[in-house]
Amino acid sequence: MVGKALLLGVDGGGTGCRARLVDLDGHVRGEGTAGPANIRFGIKESFAQVLRAADEALGQAGLTLEDADIVACLALAGASEPTRLAAVEAYRHPFRRVVYTNDAHAACVGAHGGQDGGVVIAGTGTVGWAVIQGRHYRVGGWGFPISDEGSGAWLGCEAVRRVLWAYDGRIEWTDLLAMLFGQFRSDAHLIVQWMTTARPRDFARHARAVVAYAGHGDPVALELVRSGAAHLDALAARLVTVGAPRLAMLGGLAEPMRPWLAAETAARLVTPAGDALSGALRLARLAAEPASAAAA
Amino acid sequence: MVGKALLLGVDGGGTGCRARLVDLDGHVRGEGTAGPANIRFGIKESFAQVLRAADEALGQAGLTLEDADIVACLALAGASEPTRLAAVEAYRHPFRRVVYTNDAHAACVGAHGGQDGGVVIAGTGTVGWAVIQGRHYRVGGWGFPISDEGSGAWLGCEAVRRVLWAYDGRIEWTDLLAMLFGQFRSDAHLIVQWMTTARPRDFARHARAVVAYAGHGDPVALELVRSGAAHLDALAARLVTVGAPRLAMLGGLAEPMRPWLAAETAARLVTPAGDALSGALRLARLAAEPASAAAA
Repeated sequence: MVGKALLLGVDGGGTGCRARLVDLDGHVRGEGTAGPANIRFGIKESFAQVLRAADEALGQAGLTLEDADIVACLALAGASEPTRLAAVEAYRHPFRRVVYTNDAHAACVGAHGGQDGGVVIAGTGTVGWAVIQGRHYRVGGWGFPISDEGSGAWLGCEAVRRVLWAYDGRIEWTDLLAMLFGQFRSDAHLIVQWMTTARPRDFARHARAVVAYAGHGDPVALELVRSGAAHLDALAARLVTVGAPRLAMLGGLAEPMRPWLAAETAARLVTPAGDALSGALRLARLAAEPASAAAA
Repeated sequence: MVGKALLLGVDGGGTGCRARLVDLDGHVRGEGTAGPANIRFGIKESFAQVLRAADEALGQAGLTLEDADIVACLALAGASEPTRLAAVEAYRHPFRRVVYTNDAHAACVGAHGGQDGGVVIAGTGTVGWAVIQGRHYRVGGWGFPISDEGSGAWLGCEAVRRVLWAYDGRIEWTDLLAMLFGQFRSDAHLIVQWMTTARPRDFARHARAVVAYAGHGDPVALELVRSGAAHLDALAARLVTVGAPRLAMLGGLAEPMRPWLAAETAARLVTPAGDALSGALRLARLAAEPASAAAA
């Protein structure tokens, strides 16, 4: 079995799940994707997605979960919560060994190649994470609606809020607001119906329009991206205060929001060395090292 | 049966449901209360609460739903939504006649004794409503988290958001934030757990503390009540713009928030002539009048 040892990295976010299988020489043997794997919404559901993505990756390598000798790092959204992490660690899994962490930590390890640094992740949610001399620092990312300011969910919610302000006559319509209202067939009650079951990713679907309209000078869009960028700056500033020597911006909104960040934030930014998957694989390799050392 | 005709008013809000039974001379024959009756969360559930409150009121009058001849006005939260209103109107009910409306309209009718005017309701949610020369005007009240700014839910959510900012080191702790954090056993993860299933009324439970601490000069509490009051001012200003000659403030936060309102808002405020139940009873009487005229 030792000769066939493989590393599996899984980046399990709130929107989707990605898996990558590599051998100890670093060759990619397979990749897979699946649905949301945030353990806040159920460990069983999260694991089902993780295994789906892993199965796909293994299939590409001509392997199955039963016959592979795998050391995995499962980096799952929601796994920063201690009782939930304990519950997931007690869950039966088919791997030789598993290291659990959260997706922000894996992203930070990936972005800085395991060196000290911080990340500001701006996607459906927002979170800041730093690893400095072995210590972890977290800022934000507590979830919509009480946290995640500057995220896609936040931008979308604030934009829809202003659609209703315009509809009520509290503010002037802008191009952005009129376009968004059109997406709800210009019916405020359809917005309410939509909201009743809307998840953060549903709110986040409107975020890209906000950023795009800001680029065309839409006053409401401008207000929102400036305010959202200020929240991202606050995450970055806190990570710098605790000692992060460099920062990387990650997530679907990282590039679109970058022009709106403060100069102080921009000055700290470096290009990420790798993504959360590469961070998860690095953490899996660290966990596998004693075994590979024994095999050598 | 005509001799026994009775009027039933029901104020069915998102937090609770109140019923009052009066005879055509205006004598109160019974009162009842029950749980939340917002039809946004189910017409069947809403009706179950309405009938529970009505049963209690009838019991006090020594009557049952079967032997009473009742004209009812059911003023239900969520009934401003047209398709939902149509669904509730098609629902089988045990009354001779029912008029359906939403709780804000009934509150407006009650506050101004059926005369032209507007109301700003600040409770778990916020909404502005006006009736002017037979026309209805609505502002806000589209529901948390996309609307209801300045409400109890909004104040509570914004306060908890800032607890997490302080916990993360993004802002300084204040007495309010430290006290609120203590309510979550000083554990940010308990806040996240709580939020996962928190309803607007759960967020609103923290609103009174925000207003109380503002009175003692807590800087975060002050920022929040000023911002919340500005949202209530915006509702009031819109109602004045559309022609409301006078305004009443209603709801559990009306008195606590009153000192923080703009002078322009305060200058328009009158003491409400009655509550939403009295408004619902007035609307029930209007619906009953043809029958009572025939009986006279």
